[in-house]
Amino acid sequence: MNVEDLVLVSVDDHLIEPRDAFTPHMPAAFKDRAPRMERRGQKDVWLIEGRAFGTVGLNAVAGRPREEYGMEPTSHDHMRRGCYDIHARVDDMNANGVLGSICFPTLPGFAGARFATLPDKEYALALIRAYNDWHIHEWCGAHPGRFIPLPILPLWSPEACAQEVRRLALLGAHAVTFPDNPTKMGLPSIHSPDWDPLWRACADNKVVICCHIGTGATAEHASSESPIEAWIITMPMSIANSAADWLYAPMWKKFPSLRMALSEGGIGWIPYFLERADFAHSHHGAWTNFDFGKDKPSDVFKRHIITCFIDDNFGAKNLADVGEDMVTWECDFPHSDSTWPDSPEYLWRSLRDLSRSQIDKITHLNAMREFSYDPFSLLGRENCTVGALREKAIHITTTPTQGLGGAKPLAGTARPITSGDINRMFAAAE
Amino acid sequence: MNVEDLVLVSVDDHLIEPRDAFTPHMPAAFKDRAPRMERRGQKDVWLIEGRAFGTVGLNAVAGRPREEYGMEPTSHDHMRRGCYDIHARVDDMNANGVLGSICFPTLPGFAGARFATLPDKEYALALIRAYNDWHIHEWCGAHPGRFIPLPILPLWSPEACAQEVRRLALLGAHAVTFPDNPTKMGLPSIHSPDWDPLWRACADNKVVICCHIGTGATAEHASSESPIEAWIITMPMSIANSAADWLYAPMWKKFPSLRMALSEGGIGWIPYFLERADFAHSHHGAWTNFDFGKDKPSDVFKRHIITCFIDDNFGAKNLADVGEDMVTWECDFPHSDSTWPDSPEYLWRSLRDLSRSQIDKITHLNAMREFSYDPFSLLGRENCTVGALREKAIHITTTPTQGLGGAKPLAGTARPITSGDINRMFAAAE
Repeated sequence: MNVEDLVLVSVDDHLIEPRDAFTPHMPAAFKDRAPRMERRGQKDVWLIEGRAFGTVGLNAVAGRPREEYGMEPTSHDHMRRGCYDIHARVDDMNANGVLGSICFPTLPGFAGARFATLPDKEYALALIRAYNDWHIHEWCGAHPGRFIPLPILPLWSPEACAQEVRRLALLGAHAVTFPDNPTKMGLPSIHSPDWDPLWRACADNKVVICCHIGTGATAEHASSESPIEAWIITMPMSIANSAADWLYAPMWKKFPSLRMALSEGGIGWIPYFLERADFAHSHHGAWTNFDFGKDKPSDVFKRHIITCFIDDNFGAKNLADVGEDMVTWECDFPHSDSTWPDSPEYLWRSLRDLSRSQIDKITHLNAMREFSYDPFSLLGRENCTVGALREKAIHITTTPTQGLGGAKPLAGTARPITSGDINRMFAAAE
Repeated sequence: MNVEDLVLVSVDDHLIEPRDAFTPHMPAAFKDRAPRMERRGQKDVWLIEGRAFGTVGLNAVAGRPREEYGMEPTSHDHMRRGCYDIHARVDDMNANGVLGSICFPTLPGFAGARFATLPDKEYALALIRAYNDWHIHEWCGAHPGRFIPLPILPLWSPEACAQEVRRLALLGAHAVTFPDNPTKMGLPSIHSPDWDPLWRACADNKVVICCHIGTGATAEHASSESPIEAWIITMPMSIANSAADWLYAPMWKKFPSLRMALSEGGIGWIPYFLERADFAHSHHGAWTNFDFGKDKPSDVFKRHIITCFIDDNFGAKNLADVGEDMVTWECDFPHSDSTWPDSPEYLWRSLRDLSRSQIDKITHLNAMREFSYDPFSLLGRENCTVGALREKAIHITTTPTQGLGGAKPLAGTARPITSGDINRMFAAAE
């Protein structure tokens, strides 16, 4: 086996909503209130109910030289076409040898919170459904077999969430995005029975709850003077608190087939985390009253929680301790941590010492099983490998384009760029 | 080699201040303002400038049955004597085969912040010095060769900190406690040159900056309904953000011999963290302007940052990736995560597959070198082993004592104890 033989399914990428995503899918009553894009000087903003949102292209820097990764694209003009154009996206996937992809939303926030917190709930529901219909029919639907749909939810109502999950399951959606810690947006905790209708709908329809980093618990900036690389390091592991919280949540006993995914969480810290969890339970279980039955906490994790990684040699080296049946891979296209367009080569460095069976599980079989995703029957396995896909993309240029433009974190100095610089850049872009 | 042959130096334990700690060491002008203990119903409180502090024995639960670990001792009567009595403490160390110990303070907070934030700075300095003098002369001094002193600092003034470090270095102090993120208490960040006088004093006098978990960045409770075990799991790793911040701080270039310690941070997540740091730097270095020179971030970590663990098989198994020269061990006596009185047996399970040289480094040689601690010349190495120390403690009873009392997290129910329960218990105890 070599790098061309890999079959790659990425469980965490990002889409940038194109200009015409919403209007065609809004119901007649709300058609004139669809989000629309407006030019403001050098940038585009989305307008929703009169309010402007500037994050039209959050960190969508794929295709730039690394010197320009810190700049924030504030218009589609500042981005590689594959960020927002589905056909160009598939070309970019092919060029990187990537077969399948789960795409998180941008304008709604990774977990859809921006739409879910709009005050007019009838309008919010229409908007959420419009996004989902666009996402399923136009984004994922344009290239059958290449995407695992990831709808957003009307988070204010678990019953409405359940209804939307059931509606979309009929359209083939087996994943949904959900905040890693809903209490951070004033919703009931994952320990509340309020969410049972949603968990039930997910379990009944084999829908995975995908919790992306930054959707509840956030990677905190240590200080405004801290070099930004320090913060970048900590982003994936910032989901550890939520991972512990889900481990102790009550839905696993009630809905034994339910699954959740720690999207962009990394894997190398998981063996430590699981040993620590088992220590905590064996050391403190006598006073905490938490009953795992015959299980250890690590058993619950390995049964229900899907992990993923971008580039993680240490995690791959310790695959047995991570749990080889629930590890998946992600590309994170078009964000700055992505290994695009060299993902197969990065990945191969982590995987080449594993068995063929382990490599296949991590690169695609685990994701295909857990997300009920079957591209082979549609496309033929022989057409799904890195080698076959790259063959289809020999006309695609992946060399970096300079000067794509956008907001700059800091002008005219060579001192380290800090958390404060980045936060100021984003505040100005909003 | 077997378990009796281990030599154990613990770099993270906790002392509970005895009733008479402060008054004898306060200068004449402040003698009548020394903190004093007052009985209030079933509990004792410390009175400082008329204000009562109820955490007289934070989590000092050693010697209880595990069923009572969740109860908060609110009086010396609720604790095993070794928590606050130095002679009983050494007996308890002997019974556990522990030779040396670094003891963090309780009333001042782990990093001395409670004293440092008192408004009258002249009084605060007197109090800080009184604590330090008591700590060095009466606590550590009572049993020469058994303790590594850990003074607290007048954190509001880096110059005063430097002066205190120099004063105490003459008395043999080679460690100091410092918040892992001083911005959380309104002080300059570790990136500010304001701290240079302190770093210089530490470097000149071989003084290690010890940052205990919870002294700046804190392990957040996911929600008030979250089972408390979930929070316990995440405590050590909660220092990861600060670890990244220190990695990018400017003192290492200015003071190349300087060291800091991630106290109670664990080790099993470190290899992932270091790989992630090197990835972040190689992937983003082109735009972040941070110059590591010829080093990778992981090189800086392994040279300057001391790690420690209580019980961490996975970390020990991956010692080469953690960096075997800067790993140390901790007992965490008398807190609830401690493995007392079976620490040698716990530790042996993690270490038995390592080489003699690796075991000696982790259990004592790294700590002795980094903290300038030389018990062997004073006590004779043959008297410092687990076997020799336990021999001296055959009269010490370590079987748990029931009903020691204290505040209860929750009365009369068998539901899992939550973060909310624990926070309410502590709020009531204050």
